[in-house]
Amino acid sequence: MEVGIVVGRVTATRKDPHLVGTKLLLAQPIQLNGEASPSSPVIAIDTVGAGIGEKVILVSGSVAARVTSNKDAPVDAAIIGIIDTLEYEKIEGVY
Amino acid sequence: MEVGIVVGRVTATRKDPHLVGTKLLLAQPIQLNGEASPSSPVIAIDTVGAGIGEKVILVSGSVAARVTSNKDAPVDAAIIGIIDTLEYEKIEGVY
Amino acid sequence: MEVGIVVGRVTATRKDPHLVGTKLLLAQPIQLNGEASPSSPVIAIDTVGAGIGEKVILVSGSVAARVTSNKDAPVDAAIIGIIDTLEYEKIEGVY
Amino acid sequence: MEVGIVVGRVTATRKDPHLVGTKLLLAQPIQLNGEASPSSPVIAIDTVGAGIGEKVILVSGSVAARVTSNKDAPVDAAIIGIIDTLEYEKIEGVY
Amino acid sequence: MEVGIVVGRVTATRKDPHLVGTKLLLAQPIQLNGEASPSSPVIAIDTVGAGIGEKVILVSGSVAARVTSNKDAPVDAAIIGIIDTLEYEKIEGVY
Repeated sequence: MEVGIVVGRVTATRKDPHLVGTKLLLAQPIQLNGEASPSSPVIAIDTVGAGIGEKVILVSGSVAARVTSNKDAPVDAAIIGIIDTLEYEKIEGVY
Repeated sequence: MEVGIVVGRVTATRKDPHLVGTKLLLAQPIQLNGEASPSSPVIAIDTVGAGIGEKVILVSGSVAARVTSNKDAPVDAAIIGIIDTLEYEKIEGVY
Repeated sequence: MEVGIVVGRVTATRKDPHLVGTKLLLAQPIQLNGEASPSSPVIAIDTVGAGIGEKVILVSGSVAARVTSNKDAPVDAAIIGIIDTLEYEKIEGVY
Repeated sequence: MEVGIVVGRVTATRKDPHLVGTKLLLAQPIQLNGEASPSSPVIAIDTVGAGIGEKVILVSGSVAARVTSNKDAPVDAAIIGIIDTLEYEKIEGVY
Repeated sequence: MEVGIVVGRVTATRKDPHLVGTKLLLAQPIQLNGEASPSSPVIAIDTVGAGIGEKVILVSGSVAARVTSNKDAPVDAAIIGIIDTLEYEKIEGVY
């Protein structure tokens, strides 16, 4: 999983039937210091009630579809948690 | 999922039997400001009727095959929605 | 899927039993202008009869194994079509 | 799999029910010389008892969910081993 | 799949039970000219008897687990062949 921050929301009227009723958020993967990581923002399904500006846990790939009510949905990214704390230590030669 | 823009179309006469009758579009992943992201364009199955210049939701990986009529198709990218609005906020240190 | 160009071939005598009898080609992902994209060449299973210098459709990940006669083969890349035409439009701010 | 080093820990009160009771660590993929690799740190499930500063084996993708007690968990990264030794040779033109 | 070169070996006493008895090698993805590609080395399961310095076929993702005796192992990379020859042609604008 990755650390992300919710930055926006996407709406789409014409879409795959499996996506009807889902909440699609825009989340930017970030580094531990809070800055955007080089990867582009993702469109992620949200089922934990995340809001703009919150730090979240982003999951990618086929397992992301498991959070939707329809496990056969064509979904490859989901928000699976809202981060309370992110603790990390400075390790010689790494951070 | 990623934000993409439809830029073209691919035709292939000799192809895997599972692809016969599918519509293959070229879509470029883009950043929130509308510019192309560093990743290369993808060839994606379209089942929502997307056209050139439209912003779309791109899904990748094994789940993409779920949008085709044949769920066993060797497909790793699909257009699953046409974006109406893309709202995002400027977040300190991120955008 | 990605646009690739076939550049070579790989032979391996000692290999996983599932690969016996498969044709392994080297394909370089390319950009729309025909130049190599930053990603490295891939070793892909070919079942559509592609030859050196042909532009092809490359599929990646677990779905690639679906083109082999043995669907349980440990294969993550395949050539699933030979591209006849690749049409794309110049879109403001993208290409 | 990748070589990583455990750098921290994540807590999340609001989360997907499948994550309740799991231990979520922050791990940074590293290069053979011990320096951080360009990829961002990952949030990984730990079931082998890894601690801060330890070098670990990181697995990614859908298979990572196999280490959890609930194999349907939406998990894409896990720590599957604590590295005792990492031996490598200098190969001409590679390292 | 990718072209890699075996550069070392990893040992881990504390590990997921599925990994007991497996041989874990370090392999560096390389380019066609033999130089290391930008991606980091991977820890891969070996079942074909590869040795240090040999060029190998690396497979990634969930299909890699298919080479192990336990198909439910949390494994995302495997060596599936030892390369005898790697032939490629110089193609205008690509190599």
